[in-house]
Amino acid sequence: MLELYHYEPYANSMKNLVCLKEKGVDFVSRYVDILKFEQHEPWFVALNPNGQVPILVHDGKVITESSVINEYIEDVFPDVPLRPADPYERHRMRVISKWSDEILMPSVSMLGWHFRFHPFAKSIEEQEFQRRMERVPLHEIRQKWETTRRGAFTQEQLDESRRKIRWMIARMEEALRHSKWLAGHSYSLADINTYPHVEGVTRLYKEFWNDKTAPRSTEWLARVNERPAVKAAFALSRFSNAPGRALDADKTARTGT
Amino acid sequence: MLELYHYEPYANSMKNLVCLKEKGVDFVSRYVDILKFEQHEPWFVALNPNGQVPILVHDGKVITESSVINEYIEDVFPDVPLRPADPYERHRMRVISKWSDEILMPSVSMLGWHFRFHPFAKSIEEQEFQRRMERVPLHEIRQKWETTRRGAFTQEQLDESRRKIRWMIARMEEALRHSKWLAGHSYSLADINTYPHVEGVTRLYKEFWNDKTAPRSTEWLARVNERPAVKAAFALSRFSNAPGRALDADKTARTGT
Repeated sequence: MLELYHYEPYANSMKNLVCLKEKGVDFVSRYVDILKFEQHEPWFVALNPNGQVPILVHDGKVITESSVINEYIEDVFPDVPLRPADPYERHRMRVISKWSDEILMPSVSMLGWHFRFHPFAKSIEEQEFQRRMERVPLHEIRQKWETTRRGAFTQEQLDESRRKIRWMIARMEEALRHSKWLAGHSYSLADINTYPHVEGVTRLYKEFWNDKTAPRSTEWLARVNERPAVKAAFALSRFSNAPGRALDADKTARTGT
Repeated sequence: MLELYHYEPYANSMKNLVCLKEKGVDFVSRYVDILKFEQHEPWFVALNPNGQVPILVHDGKVITESSVINEYIEDVFPDVPLRPADPYERHRMRVISKWSDEILMPSVSMLGWHFRFHPFAKSIEEQEFQRRMERVPLHEIRQKWETTRRGAFTQEQLDESRRKIRWMIARMEEALRHSKWLAGHSYSLADINTYPHVEGVTRLYKEFWNDKTAPRSTEWLARVNERPAVKAAFALSRFSNAPGRALDADKTARTGT
C-alpha cells in the first residue's frame, strides 16, 4: 500500500502530489491538517519524528523529505520517467531542486509565515499556544511559530528572503534561455520541486515576480499550470475557493480555529 | 577528461575526493587555493558562476554542488556502487546527505569561520580585503567573510550551530543502532557526504563530540578513517602536517598571506 500524508496542494505537499499524479500511481491520500497541528500529534510523530508533512508510507516503510520522496517515487515507479536520462541534465535537475530546497523554499516560507500566518498564530490563546508548542519536535519549527506569533521577523531577514527569491528567479531565467524546462529538454523533478514555491510567489507576492521581471519563468509557470497532473493535485484541495486560487489570511484563520 | 577542482581534503572538497578514490576513477586534480581567493578569480567564476569549490569538469561539462557531484559520479561510473541497491536504504542515504548539507555542514562551517578563519580574515589589509570582496559572486559568502573579519557571529548563532551539530549526532547514533553504516548495511554516499564534517568536528571541537557523547559515531568514524580511499584523499594535502591532522589557525594565516 502507498499512502501520502499531506496537507493542501501547496508548497512541499504539492511536490509529491504532482509527482504521483504525473506517474499515474495509485495512492491513498491521508490529509493532515497542519492548522489543527495534527502533524505534531503522537500518532503522526510516531511516523515522522520531525513532525513534518509530507511523508510517504510504502508497505509500512516511512519515506521522508519531499525532494527525497520524489527521488524514491522515481526509483520505485520508473515507468513515467521524471529524471532526465542524460547525466548532465540529471545533475542540473538535482542542482535546481537543491536550490529550491535551500534557497527558494525557506525564503517563500518566511514571507508566508510573516505576512499570512501571523494573524492565525496571534489568534491562538496563550495557554493553548504553549501547549501546542510543547509538542513540536523540531526546535527550528517551534522558533518559527514563536517568531511568527510575535510578528518578529526583522526587516533584514525579510529583505534577505526577497533577495534570495530574486536570485532564484535569475537562475530560472538563465536556465529557461536554453531549454523549455528547468533541467533541459524534458519536464523533470526540477520543475516539479520548484513549481509549488514559484506558484506561491506569483500568486501572493506579485510585486517582484511577474511577466515583466520574469518573462521566461512566467511562460514556464503557465506551461506547468496546464498539466493535467497539476490540475488533479489542485482538485484535492479541501478549501472551497477554486484550485490554485489565493488562500487568504482570513480563510486560513477560520479554518484553523 | 575528468578534472576535479578542489581545495584541501577537508569539508566539501573531501566528499568528492573520497568518492572518486573509492571508485578508483582516474581524474586530474586541480588544486584551488581558497586562502588566495582563487575561487573568485575570473577564470574560475567562468567555470562556476557561484565561485565555489569543488566542481567537477567532465569532458568540458561543469558539474557543481558536492553532494550532487557525488550522485553524478555514481550515475556515470556505477561499477563500484555507492548508492544502496534497496530503495528504502537509498532514501535513507539521501535524507542523511540532505541533513549533512543543510544542518551539519553550515553549523560546522560557522564554528570554523568564527574560531579559525577570524585571525586570517582580520589580518588582511582593509583595501585589499575590499578588493577581494568585490569579486565574491555570492552575497551570502561575502557576508560570511565580512562577519568573520569583524568577529561578529553572535553567541546565539554559535549556540544554534552547536545545537544543530548535537541534533545531527543524535540522528547518527540512532542510525548506527540498526546498522554498521549510516544508510544501512552498505557503505554509501551518506557516509562519504557526512564524514568530512564529522571529521572536522571531532578534530577541532572535541568538547561535544567524543566517544562518551557519540559512542557509535566514534566507532563509525574510526571505520571510515581506515578506508584506503580516505587515506588516499588525505595524501593529496599540500599542508606539511600529517594527513588528517589539525589545520591550525597560525598555519592557515601563514598560507594565506
